[in-house]
Amino acid sequence: VTNGGIAPRTLRGFRDLLPDETRAQNFLIDRARASFESFGYEPIQTPALEYAEILKGKGGGDNEHQMFEFTDAGGRDVGMRFDLTLPLSRYVAQHENELTFPFRAYHVGYVWRGDRPQRGRFRELIQCDADMIGASGPAADAEILAVYGTTVASFELGEFRLRTNDRRVLNGIFRNLGLAGDRLADALRTLDKLDKIGAPAVAAGLAELGLEEPAARKAVDELARPAASNDEMLERLARLTESDAEGEEAVENLSRVSGLAVEYGLPPEILRIDPSIARGLDYYTGIVFETTLLSAPEVGSIGSGGRYDSLSGLYGRTAWPGVGGSIGISRILSAVGDDVLRRALRPLVVVGHGGDELLPSALSLARSLRAEGLRVEVYPTPRKHDAQLKYAASRRATLFASVDGGGEVWFRNLERGSTARAPLGEAAAAIVATLSGPGEP
Amino acid sequence: VTNGGIAPRTLRGFRDLLPDETRAQNFLIDRARASFESFGYEPIQTPALEYAEILKGKGGGDNEHQMFEFTDAGGRDVGMRFDLTLPLSRYVAQHENELTFPFRAYHVGYVWRGDRPQRGRFRELIQCDADMIGASGPAADAEILAVYGTTVASFELGEFRLRTNDRRVLNGIFRNLGLAGDRLADALRTLDKLDKIGAPAVAAGLAELGLEEPAARKAVDELARPAASNDEMLERLARLTESDAEGEEAVENLSRVSGLAVEYGLPPEILRIDPSIARGLDYYTGIVFETTLLSAPEVGSIGSGGRYDSLSGLYGRTAWPGVGGSIGISRILSAVGDDVLRRALRPLVVVGHGGDELLPSALSLARSLRAEGLRVEVYPTPRKHDAQLKYAASRRATLFASVDGGGEVWFRNLERGSTARAPLGEAAAAIVATLSGPGEP
Repeated sequence: VTNGGIAPRTLRGFRDLLPDETRAQNFLIDRARASFESFGYEPIQTPALEYAEILKGKGGGDNEHQMFEFTDAGGRDVGMRFDLTLPLSRYVAQHENELTFPFRAYHVGYVWRGDRPQRGRFRELIQCDADMIGASGPAADAEILAVYGTTVASFELGEFRLRTNDRRVLNGIFRNLGLAGDRLADALRTLDKLDKIGAPAVAAGLAELGLEEPAARKAVDELARPAASNDEMLERLARLTESDAEGEEAVENLSRVSGLAVEYGLPPEILRIDPSIARGLDYYTGIVFETTLLSAPEVGSIGSGGRYDSLSGLYGRTAWPGVGGSIGISRILSAVGDDVLRRALRPLVVVGHGGDELLPSALSLARSLRAEGLRVEVYPTPRKHDAQLKYAASRRATLFASVDGGGEVWFRNLERGSTARAPLGEAAAAIVATLSGPGEP
Repeated sequence: VTNGGIAPRTLRGFRDLLPDETRAQNFLIDRARASFESFGYEPIQTPALEYAEILKGKGGGDNEHQMFEFTDAGGRDVGMRFDLTLPLSRYVAQHENELTFPFRAYHVGYVWRGDRPQRGRFRELIQCDADMIGASGPAADAEILAVYGTTVASFELGEFRLRTNDRRVLNGIFRNLGLAGDRLADALRTLDKLDKIGAPAVAAGLAELGLEEPAARKAVDELARPAASNDEMLERLARLTESDAEGEEAVENLSRVSGLAVEYGLPPEILRIDPSIARGLDYYTGIVFETTLLSAPEVGSIGSGGRYDSLSGLYGRTAWPGVGGSIGISRILSAVGDDVLRRALRPLVVVGHGGDELLPSALSLARSLRAEGLRVEVYPTPRKHDAQLKYAASRRATLFASVDGGGEVWFRNLERGSTARAPLGEAAAAIVATLSGPGEP
């Protein structure tokens, strides 16, 4: 027993993941990767550190102000990335001669934000992004909705809704109400707070931008009131954008996108056209979307994004059109991590032994079980049988096996409480049979 | 065409991974995770940023001086982790009441080092570590050797050697030659440079520490000269450590460890007892090991580690014994990334179509192929058949399928150059048959 005098602690807003938490996180990431891969998306990686000016380029909104920024030993002003979208745009501009367009990319990585830490909000988050760069039009938009819907469905976290809108629809509606210029962006930012501050406060905010009070209230009602179907909502939006060319075209696009998304494989009951979705980031130029779990609406969107057609133009000769989004793995885990873990756990076998001379037999049994695809660990030091059994239980092992003198293996199925014995040479087969026997799901 | 004026570039020593490079990296990480899991190791994660004093605790050697360190907005002195071993030791001290010991952990993550960048050396590296905390003795040491040997074997990168030693053997040998105190650690650090500076320079270095020149030369010869077998090497080491109690015990331990490692599943032809392995880090207290690919000896060790029995005591009440190591994923990729990629590529199908009205049929075909487990992408915008085919070739797709008018699908197996047609409803089955037909490996 000693103490080196350095208190073991993590920085405020940062945290370790315990094994179960990491397992749940890995489960979601692996499912997302498999889903993105099935649609032909290619994995990429970018550095954690970038020149600060790259990250401050545009559109990061509040996140930019919360960037971890410092001067490195070479005197460079550097920042830790706070999202994966700006690095992707820089990546596309830098490597455009090495990529094939349309370029479908997915990107799994940590991002860092110096937010004031709150319950469930951390300064280090892991995100999974998938984006298509170099394709405009409703088919590309629809594919992204289908990719995100399919991916969230693969998490098996119960019912969810993918709500989509087009920012140009909102621009058309607010123009018809008399707003113009910067006021349009202000109106979208005000509307984006609907879930947080409620309809009356949003109406008051719009009134401050210059709308008549009754018109502001009516507009919020039209945007926030659910419709019986996507078709009914599209009719309402067509009416609200009437004679605004950009708005009308955007409603037509939204109609085409929602139809194609279903052809792409998105279950139709999941998709909702919802004009109250605005998204807070300035770089979106077309469709936007959010995903919410019906079992955890309070955490907000767990998968969101949209079309951004000018980002890569910040850095390069070509303004590649882009559409994509981000899955908030850390946010999902904060809401329903236990549900995820139940799906992520795999059976574990602990092999013990009665003394050093029996260790080779225990190792041989472990090798045979591992060859059957099982997770198997061997208790490495000789200890009493009961202590080993207690260890296996605390590891939540599915089965404990002990190699005893006389060439026999005693084993207990810890889930069912049943025990049995088998000669060493037959023990692996008997254990596999027990684990896959009747009563197992 | 535009230009936002921010030059797209990465920081010196940092780099993006293109899709193929990321795919190869993911392949190695996924194989390592599967191997670690099969031995019962549990995944953990720690933050990228730590209090600087945690990382400066001890034993980081040169890496500590190269740490990215800065003062955060809250005035805290923080550093980006430069290895995964110090964070693990802090983690164990911080969470000892939440963990079950022996604690088998694996940890995949980036580390950052402000090295002067050289060819093949980067400031951002990804590592895969597996460690066992809370177990002493030869069985735990042997398990770690078997875990690393099995993991590197799972990469399928041809023949490799896992070379192991025990630092206490070297201490015994150098004590028998008359060194003591700090000179012992200096001698180990000198020996560690053998691969880089050669035997004469190491002998000269040992002479500077106080050994007679002939004795220094003889010692280096005995340590560097291969033996015909591990048994012969153990006999040599027993002779060199004779009557030094710690050294003799360490040779006995090494004998036990190498025997057990084979029982744990390590192919015996891979394991070499090699007393020239010293490892540069001060925190090792027992066995040490290195792994080298026979096809790429020039990159040095791609998987290395050892026993460190005092690290967690820096931070907590208990000095948990620990043994473990690290796989240098980035280093492997710099040496044999193309070999890895050949194993990592999965077939890709590109589905095109002859016009917007055929897009739903193309999407339906893509869904059917995806359900068969294939990677499938749809060309999202209508373009000429030849342009789509060219795109498919540049994506190195295995097959290109095009939905034409009249409800037919034309497809070309791009690897074999064969083409065929099928009605839409039968196309998925025909394509799957083509991809799994004779001629495929």
